[in-house]
Amino acid sequence: MDKILRIDMGAKGGPKARVDTLGDYAGLGGRAMTSAIIAKEVPPTCHPLGPDNKIVFAPGLLGGTSASMSGRISVGYKSPLTGGIKEANAGGQAAQVIARLGYAAIVFEGQPGDGKLFQIFIDKDGFNIQPADELRMLGNYDLIEKLKGQYNKKATFISIGPAGEMKMHVSSVACTDREQRPTRHAARGGSGAVMGSKGVKVIILDDTGTKRIAPKDVEAFKAANRIFSDGMKKHPVTGEGLRAYGTNVLTNVLNEAGGYPTRNFQRGRFEGKDKISGETIAALEVERGGSDEHSCHTGCIIKCSGIYNDKDGNYLTKQPEYETVWAHGGHCEIDDPDAIAMMDRLDDDYGLDTIEMGAAIGVAMEAGIIEFGDAEGAINLLHEVGKGTPLGRILGGGAASVGKAYGVVRIPVVKGQSMPAYDPRAVQGNGVTYATSTMGADHTAGYAVTANILAVGGKVDPLGPAGQVELSRNLQIATAAIDSTGMCLFIAFPLLDQPETFQALIDIINSLHGLSLTADDVTALGKSVLTTERNFNIAAGFTSAHDRLPDYFKTEPLPPHNVVFGVTDKELDTVFNW
Amino acid sequence: MDKILRIDMGAKGGPKARVDTLGDYAGLGGRAMTSAIIAKEVPPTCHPLGPDNKIVFAPGLLGGTSASMSGRISVGYKSPLTGGIKEANAGGQAAQVIARLGYAAIVFEGQPGDGKLFQIFIDKDGFNIQPADELRMLGNYDLIEKLKGQYNKKATFISIGPAGEMKMHVSSVACTDREQRPTRHAARGGSGAVMGSKGVKVIILDDTGTKRIAPKDVEAFKAANRIFSDGMKKHPVTGEGLRAYGTNVLTNVLNEAGGYPTRNFQRGRFEGKDKISGETIAALEVERGGSDEHSCHTGCIIKCSGIYNDKDGNYLTKQPEYETVWAHGGHCEIDDPDAIAMMDRLDDDYGLDTIEMGAAIGVAMEAGIIEFGDAEGAINLLHEVGKGTPLGRILGGGAASVGKAYGVVRIPVVKGQSMPAYDPRAVQGNGVTYATSTMGADHTAGYAVTANILAVGGKVDPLGPAGQVELSRNLQIATAAIDSTGMCLFIAFPLLDQPETFQALIDIINSLHGLSLTADDVTALGKSVLTTERNFNIAAGFTSAHDRLPDYFKTEPLPPHNVVFGVTDKELDTVFNW
Repeated sequence: MDKILRIDMGAKGGPKARVDTLGDYAGLGGRAMTSAIIAKEVPPTCHPLGPDNKIVFAPGLLGGTSASMSGRISVGYKSPLTGGIKEANAGGQAAQVIARLGYAAIVFEGQPGDGKLFQIFIDKDGFNIQPADELRMLGNYDLIEKLKGQYNKKATFISIGPAGEMKMHVSSVACTDREQRPTRHAARGGSGAVMGSKGVKVIILDDTGTKRIAPKDVEAFKAANRIFSDGMKKHPVTGEGLRAYGTNVLTNVLNEAGGYPTRNFQRGRFEGKDKISGETIAALEVERGGSDEHSCHTGCIIKCSGIYNDKDGNYLTKQPEYETVWAHGGHCEIDDPDAIAMMDRLDDDYGLDTIEMGAAIGVAMEAGIIEFGDAEGAINLLHEVGKGTPLGRILGGGAASVGKAYGVVRIPVVKGQSMPAYDPRAVQGNGVTYATSTMGADHTAGYAVTANILAVGGKVDPLGPAGQVELSRNLQIATAAIDSTGMCLFIAFPLLDQPETFQALIDIINSLHGLSLTADDVTALGKSVLTTERNFNIAAGFTSAHDRLPDYFKTEPLPPHNVVFGVTDKELDTVFNW
Repeated sequence: MDKILRIDMGAKGGPKARVDTLGDYAGLGGRAMTSAIIAKEVPPTCHPLGPDNKIVFAPGLLGGTSASMSGRISVGYKSPLTGGIKEANAGGQAAQVIARLGYAAIVFEGQPGDGKLFQIFIDKDGFNIQPADELRMLGNYDLIEKLKGQYNKKATFISIGPAGEMKMHVSSVACTDREQRPTRHAARGGSGAVMGSKGVKVIILDDTGTKRIAPKDVEAFKAANRIFSDGMKKHPVTGEGLRAYGTNVLTNVLNEAGGYPTRNFQRGRFEGKDKISGETIAALEVERGGSDEHSCHTGCIIKCSGIYNDKDGNYLTKQPEYETVWAHGGHCEIDDPDAIAMMDRLDDDYGLDTIEMGAAIGVAMEAGIIEFGDAEGAINLLHEVGKGTPLGRILGGGAASVGKAYGVVRIPVVKGQSMPAYDPRAVQGNGVTYATSTMGADHTAGYAVTANILAVGGKVDPLGPAGQVELSRNLQIATAAIDSTGMCLFIAFPLLDQPETFQALIDIINSLHGLSLTADDVTALGKSVLTTERNFNIAAGFTSAHDRLPDYFKTEPLPPHNVVFGVTDKELDTVFNW
């Protein structure tokens, strides 16, 4: 992890790669790395799909090690969806492999002038860039199926589907999991479009002949990792809930809390929730010979995923995430788990952000294009996107795009990005995060569901404004730091409740790199990342006017609690005062 | 002109109108009036199509008088296209009639919750609001045809076509001319969508029984108006060029200057220009029994319009403006005048901004949806817009919408609004206006073609940055003031060259209202309007990052002069330093 691979896709005579030293970026990982490179090297006002944008893939500070949960990859770029800086984050094998290959980051720059597509192979001996026009418009599943026989059985793929090639703002970057399935997506903000604009269809990574990254202090590392892993296992969220039912355990929880956005954020509870809850889907998975637990990357001990088979017992998709089940489910009043799983599969195949895609379909329902609850119609809309029909192009622009095209006023977006599965009126801490995050509406950026709903890391009444700014601020800082370690964000649950597990994380980093960081350093890192991102966004033209929820969340009460979002603009403007 | 008519379209039990005093708005007219009302009464971050936006119709300070050229109407709103404040300006009869009815402004507020449509009749005795669902989706021509028999033969109509009802961002507000033809559009920025969002299909104005507004000092007014009119007649632009060939006299001029944006701003000269020039079209109009001169409103002495008949000698449309001929012509490499005239007719009928619509079609050509030069294809695309098909919805969102949907990088817009018919690299003064205007890319906001190309009001080399900021600044100030008088902007040509004509304008205002304004007051008015608009935009989230041309104008040289836009960001940021 002492070098950066830079590939200029717009070089004269075809793409050219070079290996660079870390330079100014030494000591950075994950989101800290991607945001630093984008902020320093990309003009904030450039067109996100033009040659001046870059797309950066970076494992975290702990990537490539044996630390539990350290397999997240950060993908950074200027977002075509939000117009601001973006770090999209995924599981799968890519981060571990890139780290073991010795790269702290892979950066794609420039773009081919002729619209050509390329595939890029990287292993311990170097890299090889080949034209890949024969792969054009392949879905991620077909793409991997076609390619995987040509490479090592453990090869990892980072790819885009047709949506990325068509430069849609809902398009994602897919990373394969341990079974070479393209199910782990750095999805939000149009990552696939940026990768597509660089002419990169697929990156093939082979770490054969490389080793795990060795800690400076092996014993201290092992000891800290043991404490850390124990902390994960003994916390009820990471040790029980997530493994048993996956993230979709939250359908019942959010519904009970009255914060499950139903029918395009018109209500906080969904009548059909029992048919699509985590409990129901986990049972279905087991019944059909799939699995209700699965690790998306080497080193994961939570196993929050699963395998969803179709009615005939054949693999259909990975266990759909809570936010996916919500976006394609309750948001659209669809209560058919097979339809939702099929949409999850199609999203992964076409290369789409499930949240933005589902949100867009919900707004299309509000516009009257199809009826709420129409599962078959929703699947057809997804195929329109995959085919790139005009209607598909509108949907492929995301929820805001649909709203603009059809004159819909109730569009649940901030900075152009759709809100996920937590209504900001009934989970007001998340509302603060949606409004103020550098990423646009993003639940992961400061997941206040913890103290608002789950009583993790304290308790803050979800239905009122009191305490939400401080809660969101602290979570945004902590998240930016965790996203820089390459650790799965779910480690936050034990970290918030168990001081010894938090200390163990710091000990893991210190023993790996021979450092002596303290908790204050972790906080400083988070603040530093947020400041870098905020400054980029300000230069790109963002102001406090963009740190706002749409007006209707402040005026339309959400049943059943009949609350509106109560955090004032003035309070929102204090989130980054530290 | 001592009262404001306010109609709350969202009132309980149906729309309610009330007559208000001028209050804070006393002494304002035209753009000064509309921008003051929007800035004071509309929340800057509200959804432009929601109930909190307003749409204001205001004659100028000289509206309703016998002053030559005083018939322009200002239409103000928060723009769904730009997200900022907007004043769209039109000729036709509306301004004169509203002024004679005694209204300094008509303001529509709120919106019907049920999507109902209304028609509003206003005469000297009051107003009458009726449901108008039977008029739904009528084109402006059919609408007026259907209604005009029911009203006085001289009734004036302000209406929207299907595009406004569908809330498209390219939709316009149509005003009828002296022959009750819906040819005069306050077009830019989605005025029709805002009027549609208020549920207003058509406003019918009857000034029967009213009188011209009498000046306080009749003799002084007459004398000043005589000098002013003489100035208009003796200036070569207003006295000769515009009457002979209309605004389309500029096709040859801009082409010669190498600043005629061809094939989506790829070149500065168009091979087919002779087939669509003002000279050619004027001859065609006369040959077919139309006319090469026509006044769009009572009191116009320039007569820059005309009547364009089809091959059979039947009325097709008014003489297409230069910017329309460019947008549907050279921008798309279309050189068929009948096709361009047909598109002008369709734009007026569906209710579309010809500039934004043509620009959007050009970007669609760049995206490969149809070929450049395909006139029949372009007409078909317009019908897609009128029918509201998905492709029509994309086009109906304007040039930026097409670019986003199809991943096009070369999109000639500022603040989301498309540039008109003057390439900012070869008319760099206009480039400064495009970049910095409160309106988005707008040639009328500071028409530097004057000194850049026409040697009116001095001479500034169009191909370099020197002097452009000062030129644009002064023109933006003067324009904001002229737009507040209700005078046609073309009076600027003699005003810039003839001190006595400028003084005559001030004398007209003073003798009308019993004032003693000086040239400094006119400048102060312009600055005040711009400041009001800038402050609204800042509160809506605009920063200096939005006062920029797209990057490619700074890097891609424009043939034949092979120049790039050379005004620096730092210089652009000084435009409003006065």
